[in-house]
Amino acid sequence: MRLSQFHLRTEKETPADAEVTSHKLMLKAGMLRKLGAGLYTWSPLGLRVLRKVEGIVREEMNAAGAIELLMPAVQPRELWEETGRWEKFGGQLLKMQDRKESWYCFGPTHEEVITDFARSELASYKQLPVNFYQIQTKFRDEIRPRFGVMRAREFLMKDAYSFDIDEAGMAASYQTMHTAYTRIFTRLGLEFRSVQADSGAIGGDASQEFHVIADSGEDALVFSTGSEYAANVEAARAAAPAPRPAASEDLRKVDTPTQKTCEDVAALLDIPLARTAKSIALMAGETFVLALVRGDHAVNAIKLAKVDGLADYRMASEAEIAAHLGAAPGFLGPIGAVKPIRVVADLEVAALADFVVGANATGFHIAGVNWGRDLPEADVVADIRDVVAGDRAEDGGELKVARGIEVGHVFQLGRKYAEAMNFKVLDANGKASVPFMGCYGIGVSRIVAAAIEQNHDANGILWPVAMAPWQVAVCVINPKNEAHVAEAADALYRELGAAGFETVLDDRGLRPGMMFGDIELIGIPHRVVVSARGLESGAFEYRARSASESENLDREALFSRLRG
Amino acid sequence: MRLSQFHLRTEKETPADAEVTSHKLMLKAGMLRKLGAGLYTWSPLGLRVLRKVEGIVREEMNAAGAIELLMPAVQPRELWEETGRWEKFGGQLLKMQDRKESWYCFGPTHEEVITDFARSELASYKQLPVNFYQIQTKFRDEIRPRFGVMRAREFLMKDAYSFDIDEAGMAASYQTMHTAYTRIFTRLGLEFRSVQADSGAIGGDASQEFHVIADSGEDALVFSTGSEYAANVEAARAAAPAPRPAASEDLRKVDTPTQKTCEDVAALLDIPLARTAKSIALMAGETFVLALVRGDHAVNAIKLAKVDGLADYRMASEAEIAAHLGAAPGFLGPIGAVKPIRVVADLEVAALADFVVGANATGFHIAGVNWGRDLPEADVVADIRDVVAGDRAEDGGELKVARGIEVGHVFQLGRKYAEAMNFKVLDANGKASVPFMGCYGIGVSRIVAAAIEQNHDANGILWPVAMAPWQVAVCVINPKNEAHVAEAADALYRELGAAGFETVLDDRGLRPGMMFGDIELIGIPHRVVVSARGLESGAFEYRARSASESENLDREALFSRLRG
Repeated sequence: MRLSQFHLRTEKETPADAEVTSHKLMLKAGMLRKLGAGLYTWSPLGLRVLRKVEGIVREEMNAAGAIELLMPAVQPRELWEETGRWEKFGGQLLKMQDRKESWYCFGPTHEEVITDFARSELASYKQLPVNFYQIQTKFRDEIRPRFGVMRAREFLMKDAYSFDIDEAGMAASYQTMHTAYTRIFTRLGLEFRSVQADSGAIGGDASQEFHVIADSGEDALVFSTGSEYAANVEAARAAAPAPRPAASEDLRKVDTPTQKTCEDVAALLDIPLARTAKSIALMAGETFVLALVRGDHAVNAIKLAKVDGLADYRMASEAEIAAHLGAAPGFLGPIGAVKPIRVVADLEVAALADFVVGANATGFHIAGVNWGRDLPEADVVADIRDVVAGDRAEDGGELKVARGIEVGHVFQLGRKYAEAMNFKVLDANGKASVPFMGCYGIGVSRIVAAAIEQNHDANGILWPVAMAPWQVAVCVINPKNEAHVAEAADALYRELGAAGFETVLDDRGLRPGMMFGDIELIGIPHRVVVSARGLESGAFEYRARSASESENLDREALFSRLRG
Repeated sequence: MRLSQFHLRTEKETPADAEVTSHKLMLKAGMLRKLGAGLYTWSPLGLRVLRKVEGIVREEMNAAGAIELLMPAVQPRELWEETGRWEKFGGQLLKMQDRKESWYCFGPTHEEVITDFARSELASYKQLPVNFYQIQTKFRDEIRPRFGVMRAREFLMKDAYSFDIDEAGMAASYQTMHTAYTRIFTRLGLEFRSVQADSGAIGGDASQEFHVIADSGEDALVFSTGSEYAANVEAARAAAPAPRPAASEDLRKVDTPTQKTCEDVAALLDIPLARTAKSIALMAGETFVLALVRGDHAVNAIKLAKVDGLADYRMASEAEIAAHLGAAPGFLGPIGAVKPIRVVADLEVAALADFVVGANATGFHIAGVNWGRDLPEADVVADIRDVVAGDRAEDGGELKVARGIEVGHVFQLGRKYAEAMNFKVLDANGKASVPFMGCYGIGVSRIVAAAIEQNHDANGILWPVAMAPWQVAVCVINPKNEAHVAEAADALYRELGAAGFETVLDDRGLRPGMMFGDIELIGIPHRVVVSARGLESGAFEYRARSASESENLDREALFSRLRG
């Protein structure tokens, strides 16, 4: 491609309304143009990168035996009612009525449509296993669309759905996809990890996420030094605590006039923060629940919701707290409630002795608290906290925390959707049997942003070669006045193309500084400068995007360098 | 591709609810699966064909210098209000509200979005000419979606938009696209014509449609034997009629007790149908209009709406007719109205002498009518009829009529959208100037159906090679019991692939009749049968999809035949 024939429009200023690096750089490089909240036009430059990702995803899905099809974006309400998700999916589901006042949604995912397709097309175990996928435009009506295409409303997704006759088949299909995803992210040239995940709204039995590792990632990922164990903090588990020590202190009420946080109380009493317990007041239906985690820990909302009876919990109001504990937030605790309460203690809190809780009286805490002696054992003891760096892992290693951007998710769905939609096939014995499904998503457009979060410097983007809009940029100095330089550059451009390098010729005639700035900003991995002086000395000025210095290479050395 | 690893599901029965051949065959071949009214899933087989079309369109657009980008499907109301189309576009525009109750539409076309993009990205004539295109999913809420993907609601379209500094540039960009379209449809292997068209709701100055010629086409196309002239009947013109002859008959009222149609009246009076005039009663605002065309002609609604004052005409009600003409339909005419009326006569009616019209009295017509003598000259004389086969062309030739399916449309938009959206660039003199636009659409998914309408027989589809899901099918007889046959077929399959033929191996182990039926139905251009008997005699049984007989060819002859 000759840049003079392309549409490249970079910005000098960093856009004020972009919050994260990838969004800033995509706007500066002119990859995106905002149309509305969470709606972006992919410029010619941006689309080149998007298509690179799409191409690699497609090749690896095909290589893994998945079969591509294309489902509509617009989906009828009736299908979503079969699974109950028309209501349950919530505000992210963009609903609309056509001219006949029938309801549809702009599909945020396609479990219903593919299951409907499958129940029409698949009748026998002989047609299984099969894995259908598409690369298609989706819409999720995010409450707060942001970060450009990282959390856009309209986005490009690869979604695949496997069908197997039994659970073992589902596990095998799932593993095939896990392997394909590993190949995809490896080929894209990204540093990534697959981690155990919570299944969330999609549901099902087992799931793993694929994350691009980046300090700016929204998700905390937990790794063990003792094994390959890795999990999203939403799902990560630490080793069980040591057994509870014996009680050694007496129960005593302590003055904490202004100390409303565990940190303040621990400082005042000069005890470790880990010997305090935070009380979180919840309502689960009509039941008042006090969830307890150590002062140095944070409650994990997803784990909490998995406790029996807490699926639909909410925070308690101050009035509800006052009615049950007779106290105000900051001084709450499990001892001395004025009405019946349910106590849910984290594993680590249940293992404490001689600990500190609020006294249910403003200005006071209780120290030297011991389970069984000062209060009954908790109604529920469960893992309800986020693990933290330094926790011991179940494998004996130490847990480390890194940050990641979720770009893929694989699920074992089991029979959930097939059962809800009454989809059966005949098994080997001629009996109608509900198939086992898996579903597998990749955020194609999000990968572009995630790659930038991981690969950039002060001057712009550093594309992995496989994702770069072009691999090589040939920059011509002063092409309009020096015809022989322009001709030499054009010859090199054509030669590189013939040798299989995707090359862009910057023949726009910009001043070198502006030209180099653009080529760096848009992240072309290899830059070759053709100038009158260079031609005289028989050398091309070559610079890798990641290198700090240029080198002068003759033609042969240049090609050998580009071949890597 | 090995069919055993693919998902092919053909139907034996012709689906009852499909009205046209292409829809029937696409369902029978398992290319489509209906999700809802005008909503179709493209099965793996269907998608292969769709991608072939998409690929050729993309290659030729790129070769013509157009630059690909990707705009969102979801478009904000505000943009559509800038051009007034939020209201004017009508019921085809699918509108929706997001969670913040802001209005959006699912884009049926992208003039607004691209003009918004252009006004942000283009500031100078130096950036022109430029032509942006995308291949993208669109939605039009058709009143009556039908004929499968021929008139679906969600469909795949290639839309391109050119920007030029002046009218001559626009004309050149338009011609470039016309040439590219000609290359696209030629490469697709379709019989097609470009014809002059009406610009319709998109508006603008000049436009041409590309039609795939097929007897089942919805559109009538008009060609001249005298030149390259071709037009959609919506826009086609015939030569002006010969001058009006002198009057030779007296005016007389004739008894036509049950003769309500021109045909019946002409038969009763034993005069040529071409000497009768039909009266069509319209309302244009408060004005009652009588449109007159010859008894052997049909009114052209698009031409009629171009008559001054008739842009928003509607048919008159019986009450309005009675109030103005004092008569009932079947006996209407321009003579003797009881209230003022406006008479719009077709060119051919204005050229009649001694003709017959309704008498505005039930059971009567008036014969021997002559303009100027029996009634005033018409208020408007204009071309308001469909041309018919046999009409004299303006070039002196004869007009012929064929049927076509519109698959492409190119428009010169002029400054309409740029003006409405206040888009200007600096011209060579540094003055702000409104650019000239063109827009260019191709119905990518519709092409698939149109190709089938043009290319099929009693056994199924006959794909042009460029659109076929695979070029060659290798059919194995009895692969499960005869390993050496399966191996030979597999070897041939791999050899064909290596030689550059896109090949499918039918290794499903079906009985020959079923297997051949499928391969014919899905339209693979070349079939090669590998059987034990054939292997013994050193021959492959080859048959072109379009041929009635097979031939036995050795390996060399087979490859040479496939190379064409």
